[in-house]
Amino acid sequence: MKTPVPDYLQHVLNACDANQHGALADYIPELANANPNRLALALSTVDGTIYSTGDDEVAFTIQSMSKPFAYALAIRHLGLDSVLQKVGVEPSGEAFNQIALDPQSNTPKNPMINSGAITTHSLLPHDEHSTRAEKLREFLSELAGRELSFDDAVYQSEVKTAFRNLSIGYMLRTVGVLEEDPADVVNGYIRQCAILVTVKDLAKMASVLANGGVQAATGKRLLSRSVVRQVLSVMMTCGMYDAAGDWLTTVGIPAKSGVAGGIMGALPGQVGLAVFSPKLDTHGNSVRGVEIFERLSKDMGLHVMEGTPSAQTIVQSRYTCGIDHSVVVYELRGVLQFTESEMLLRILEDEPVANNHIVLDLTNISLIHDVGVRMLFEGVDRLIADGHRVAVIDSEHLLEQSRSHAGHEVVVREELSQYLQRFER
Amino acid sequence: MKTPVPDYLQHVLNACDANQHGALADYIPELANANPNRLALALSTVDGTIYSTGDDEVAFTIQSMSKPFAYALAIRHLGLDSVLQKVGVEPSGEAFNQIALDPQSNTPKNPMINSGAITTHSLLPHDEHSTRAEKLREFLSELAGRELSFDDAVYQSEVKTAFRNLSIGYMLRTVGVLEEDPADVVNGYIRQCAILVTVKDLAKMASVLANGGVQAATGKRLLSRSVVRQVLSVMMTCGMYDAAGDWLTTVGIPAKSGVAGGIMGALPGQVGLAVFSPKLDTHGNSVRGVEIFERLSKDMGLHVMEGTPSAQTIVQSRYTCGIDHSVVVYELRGVLQFTESEMLLRILEDEPVANNHIVLDLTNISLIHDVGVRMLFEGVDRLIADGHRVAVIDSEHLLEQSRSHAGHEVVVREELSQYLQRFER
Amino acid sequence: MKTPVPDYLQHVLNACDANQHGALADYIPELANANPNRLALALSTVDGTIYSTGDDEVAFTIQSMSKPFAYALAIRHLGLDSVLQKVGVEPSGEAFNQIALDPQSNTPKNPMINSGAITTHSLLPHDEHSTRAEKLREFLSELAGRELSFDDAVYQSEVKTAFRNLSIGYMLRTVGVLEEDPADVVNGYIRQCAILVTVKDLAKMASVLANGGVQAATGKRLLSRSVVRQVLSVMMTCGMYDAAGDWLTTVGIPAKSGVAGGIMGALPGQVGLAVFSPKLDTHGNSVRGVEIFERLSKDMGLHVMEGTPSAQTIVQSRYTCGIDHSVVVYELRGVLQFTESEMLLRILEDEPVANNHIVLDLTNISLIHDVGVRMLFEGVDRLIADGHRVAVIDSEHLLEQSRSHAGHEVVVREELSQYLQRFER
Amino acid sequence: MKTPVPDYLQHVLNACDANQHGALADYIPELANANPNRLALALSTVDGTIYSTGDDEVAFTIQSMSKPFAYALAIRHLGLDSVLQKVGVEPSGEAFNQIALDPQSNTPKNPMINSGAITTHSLLPHDEHSTRAEKLREFLSELAGRELSFDDAVYQSEVKTAFRNLSIGYMLRTVGVLEEDPADVVNGYIRQCAILVTVKDLAKMASVLANGGVQAATGKRLLSRSVVRQVLSVMMTCGMYDAAGDWLTTVGIPAKSGVAGGIMGALPGQVGLAVFSPKLDTHGNSVRGVEIFERLSKDMGLHVMEGTPSAQTIVQSRYTCGIDHSVVVYELRGVLQFTESEMLLRILEDEPVANNHIVLDLTNISLIHDVGVRMLFEGVDRLIADGHRVAVIDSEHLLEQSRSHAGHEVVVREELSQYLQRFER
Repeated sequence: MKTPVPDYLQHVLNACDANQHGALADYIPELANANPNRLALALSTVDGTIYSTGDDEVAFTIQSMSKPFAYALAIRHLGLDSVLQKVGVEPSGEAFNQIALDPQSNTPKNPMINSGAITTHSLLPHDEHSTRAEKLREFLSELAGRELSFDDAVYQSEVKTAFRNLSIGYMLRTVGVLEEDPADVVNGYIRQCAILVTVKDLAKMASVLANGGVQAATGKRLLSRSVVRQVLSVMMTCGMYDAAGDWLTTVGIPAKSGVAGGIMGALPGQVGLAVFSPKLDTHGNSVRGVEIFERLSKDMGLHVMEGTPSAQTIVQSRYTCGIDHSVVVYELRGVLQFTESEMLLRILEDEPVANNHIVLDLTNISLIHDVGVRMLFEGVDRLIADGHRVAVIDSEHLLEQSRSHAGHEVVVREELSQYLQRFER
Repeated sequence: MKTPVPDYLQHVLNACDANQHGALADYIPELANANPNRLALALSTVDGTIYSTGDDEVAFTIQSMSKPFAYALAIRHLGLDSVLQKVGVEPSGEAFNQIALDPQSNTPKNPMINSGAITTHSLLPHDEHSTRAEKLREFLSELAGRELSFDDAVYQSEVKTAFRNLSIGYMLRTVGVLEEDPADVVNGYIRQCAILVTVKDLAKMASVLANGGVQAATGKRLLSRSVVRQVLSVMMTCGMYDAAGDWLTTVGIPAKSGVAGGIMGALPGQVGLAVFSPKLDTHGNSVRGVEIFERLSKDMGLHVMEGTPSAQTIVQSRYTCGIDHSVVVYELRGVLQFTESEMLLRILEDEPVANNHIVLDLTNISLIHDVGVRMLFEGVDRLIADGHRVAVIDSEHLLEQSRSHAGHEVVVREELSQYLQRFER
Repeated sequence: MKTPVPDYLQHVLNACDANQHGALADYIPELANANPNRLALALSTVDGTIYSTGDDEVAFTIQSMSKPFAYALAIRHLGLDSVLQKVGVEPSGEAFNQIALDPQSNTPKNPMINSGAITTHSLLPHDEHSTRAEKLREFLSELAGRELSFDDAVYQSEVKTAFRNLSIGYMLRTVGVLEEDPADVVNGYIRQCAILVTVKDLAKMASVLANGGVQAATGKRLLSRSVVRQVLSVMMTCGMYDAAGDWLTTVGIPAKSGVAGGIMGALPGQVGLAVFSPKLDTHGNSVRGVEIFERLSKDMGLHVMEGTPSAQTIVQSRYTCGIDHSVVVYELRGVLQFTESEMLLRILEDEPVANNHIVLDLTNISLIHDVGVRMLFEGVDRLIADGHRVAVIDSEHLLEQSRSHAGHEVVVREELSQYLQRFER
Repeated sequence: MKTPVPDYLQHVLNACDANQHGALADYIPELANANPNRLALALSTVDGTIYSTGDDEVAFTIQSMSKPFAYALAIRHLGLDSVLQKVGVEPSGEAFNQIALDPQSNTPKNPMINSGAITTHSLLPHDEHSTRAEKLREFLSELAGRELSFDDAVYQSEVKTAFRNLSIGYMLRTVGVLEEDPADVVNGYIRQCAILVTVKDLAKMASVLANGGVQAATGKRLLSRSVVRQVLSVMMTCGMYDAAGDWLTTVGIPAKSGVAGGIMGALPGQVGLAVFSPKLDTHGNSVRGVEIFERLSKDMGLHVMEGTPSAQTIVQSRYTCGIDHSVVVYELRGVLQFTESEMLLRILEDEPVANNHIVLDLTNISLIHDVGVRMLFEGVDRLIADGHRVAVIDSEHLLEQSRSHAGHEVVVREELSQYLQRFER
């Protein structure tokens, strides 16, 4: 069988193909030369499978879609508090190229508008070997899983007409948000925007956000969960329309667009998405890109408020073994966040007070959060207090620390079958 | 074993108990008489389990927490489009009691500010027997699972001093958003706000939102998924602070507060939450209530951008049976939305082209969305096209329609074991 | 000879007659019944001569043109400081019917917008016999020089549809600017607006403002100079367009319009003006009325920044008399403000240090300001110090106090000729 | 006698001397080195007399006080309409250094804020020999009656830290208000601000505005009346506080301040004023300067709404002469604007219809406006139509054109006495 997902994406693309509204970005001369008919769509699952269709090999400049990743890199580099001192998190209610300083703090309202993005660029790491734009290119290359490059023609073209960004830069210098030569920072920011990507690159990059910061293909954690949460939250309210409520209600996918015609979105726990079509609406968003996002959200239930009640699945099976059936095995499955942990503990409540041996098998747990660890061991402690012995099978080494009670090691690094052998005979 | 969840909630409550900041609401005389030390917390899982602690039996007036439910009832009554013509979905960036009409449309910016809530009240169903406030009371009673009542003292007290709401009402009449006597609508709205609830009631009401509109205790669908998505989206950007980005980044739980000291929140797919503590901050939100929400979000990973990758769990097991092992059984588990469906279809791709008999068992599927149904049968069609026979075991009647191919009924309403018996011998 | 001024006014009227733009006010049903072709113009000199043309006997409701006079009466009643605590003086930059509270003080921005005018109405004098509207009617009757009356049909019509003003009233009550029942105050304000006037009435009323508070016909001071200055200043920046700068640069006459189609203006020291034509532009100002004001300003140099250098005229003649020509007479003429006083003192500088007898004749001085009195006597003192004797001829009793030096009374209440007789022979 | 005016000014200065509030401008390093105790005041009458006191020989940079003069020069150079296409006339309600573009037109709101002033600078004349700043220096030198120079240290200091002005410049370039290199224009503007002046220079410059565009000392018209009216109007609403109404009601003198501590004001028809004291309030206005303006306005009745009714003085004397007393002589005096002309024509109405010879003597008329000429000759025509002969004695050549009726020349360029000789004997 061949999965119908690519056909489905192609179907969505075809449905939007007829939409000829919008106009090419004209404020950067080089962008006005783009082929207006380009159309591409890519989707990445959180486990790293990529589907794509249309002009999915065509590279275009990332432009403002670089902003959430630069924000992520800046937070990773300096910490959230330092970044928040320079850039806020509120929707500006203004067009993307307004200065929009917060009247109280005199700092940019959020990192998705240009003033905030220029400031964020100034917070990127750099050293004698690499500029900030180069450091970001390296980070994006890692996210995309291939070496990305700059489009020098677009960069040169934009530098020559960057009056608005220079205006913003000098204003940021005036209020002390920037402390160095604004022209240098603005040039660096423009270079950041000129990184070349395809929709497949963007979908991969977005899927890292959707997957809580872990790159599925490599299993590497590239961003902490809290950084990802911050970036997705800001994308949700500040990423697309000036009107935060409109995008949230009708699409409900944290997203960011770029004036070259791309839109990149990440639905936490589910998918990374990217579209490309150069003609823009008056907000500066790709016309067909927005239409595709609306269809994907509506047709496929991809919306951040479409919560999946996953708790019911936490206990895959419970069975007893051992000579007198005093060994009670719980095979767990899925992720262990608050909701699942609460469910597990509620199920364990039914465990009678007795001298049983309770085995909690984490082998099929794909992810365990801090709160999951805490609640799991709180349950373990209570089971022990009730008179049970407890073993937590952690053959995959999800738990960082061992735990012991009364000389017994609770966390077992063996396979379940291996561990259970000792009770047979 | 006794689950530690109540103890954990008690711990959070104790940690916030010392916070003596804030002041009682003084603009409604009756509220100024409240006991400022009251403190309560309730949590409801999406499957209907309630945990609560503190003054969890104390009733107080629902006030602005009635707004999202009135919005839901109005949409259910008139449809989303009709409601959107009268009330927008954008954050107002202004205090809760400002008029905040959208300058283009001359309609209230959202249903969470008073102008929008008064307008929403006017859109509630009513008839010769029941006022709009009474209709809402009935709806809230159904959500809470018990008969709620009005607090007449608070109602009478607020009616006498409702200058601001009257001002708003007359302005709405001026611009044509209201078409009847504003004083009547405002009085009805004030009565709506005087419905008495406890934190347990609120947590139950919120859990219906968290559970996609289905009341877990009764299994009844009280609101459609799309209404719930709309309500939660608007709560997310307009429900709490004037600053939408602040609440989303730091708490990330769609929520609404009331001036009597309550805050109600719903995290889709996970929990309904409610707190009660009468002293308010300058935004009009309960001081300790906000602190509790921040702790719950931070400590327990309860944040809308903390996505749970649930897809990995969709195929609980795959095994063959029958004489020549030509019957291939897939036991599915969990929910079937886009992400899980995509995973399932990808797994089915590995099914060789051969004359096998593929059995897809939905018995442990807790929820199947529209997109899930569509994708499931798209897969079925392709398997058949590949030369397989296919059976979808739907003993729980999740699927509304039967499906047949070449004289064979695909959907089987038997138990899996019963169905498989025919292949044994 | 017949003065051409009436012909000139008729000419202006004719030139604007063809302008059919605009629409009748429709928010007060009764006003929508007005004859849209009405057109009238009246001009009053500061000395009380009235010119008028067109429908100059047609009475219409004063509406918002009552605002500056109510403001004047409130200041006269309570003092400027008390009034400023309730209503500001800044242009609102908003349409006339917006609430426009100052964000710092929570008070209306100025008395020319409805929120400020309703507040100002509440500051009018009233007693058991007369409502505030009645007190204002009496004051306006005195200004117009005839008994004015209310239009009950317009009043009744407006009371029924006063939603916006009620909205404003309740908001003012909310923020504490009003402290009584807002509905009562709003009704009183609507009654104030229903006073019937003709353009001749309005021109007379305006001419009192133009004449510094003195009614030329009676010579009575109805308002102090400082009240008039305050009222004219506020009319200048807040009276007409939302755009203060536009009216000041293009017309430059402090003015106020009413929705019945009137515009009333007062150019200090020069003229009172009134026009009437019911069709309004989108600002709510009479279309032809605005055109007439623009023509009068442009064609006739009637603009507050067209200053008249009047100082050159202060000394009408200087001559010596007496036996040895030691009596030096200065016949003065015109007004004696700072500029003229400075000129006088400069001329007196040329008076040689000698034992002359200096006579300063005020007979033809039409007005002497405080600063004029002070500077005059400062000059007198210096002349005496130089060795002169000095007499100030004040046969018209312009000076309130007598002044003496070394036993000699400086201020002489005789006619000049009578005084000079003693030096002849 | 010595005029007490200097003593009075000294008195005002002394009264304000104790005020130590405020702080030196710090955003231009060089200005922070100023002597904070400097205090100077100068007043120029419209006829060119200068009074000054305090540090009246100390030169300081003109800064923003150059704005109204640059605006005047730009209008003189390009015409008002061209300038209005680039810069508006509305108060911005914002601090002086905000960008404040009008949202409709995308042009600066007025020429007194920096965005408008930089734009205005770009509209100044310039050629291969002289920059715009140089052209303005020449114009200001002419106004001041002496050769002014630039302060290079202040210029250099400001150029280095002109981040805000550069920000504004680039924004103006973005929206197309500037069409050349913004850095060049900003540098030119900064040079314009570095012109050195004393309070006496400023008072002289202001007195040209007060005198309707004519320099009293030379009798030269440097600006047309309409340009002056425009400049004074804009100074009135946009020159000082962000709050236009406050300055108009409390001071009522069109004025402009500079960050070096100067304030320059011009009251039409009356005086030019200038003060200097370097310590600034939070609005960027000289603290003691504002206090001095408030005192001068209040104590000396110098307020634009303190209109001087000058009409009463127009006819200095009327007498008959000739053999049969058929020659009627009207000696006129003062200025002849609308108000005075109306008065004159009203007096002429009493002239009986008869074959008299009416002589209107303009010898003592100091100024005759367009409207005065028109109305005068309209009266002449009517007198002739009534059967009179008429002669207008214009020995000073106030009238540009001759006028004849029935072979008789109406305008007579002789002295009155010479003309009257022919009727004697």
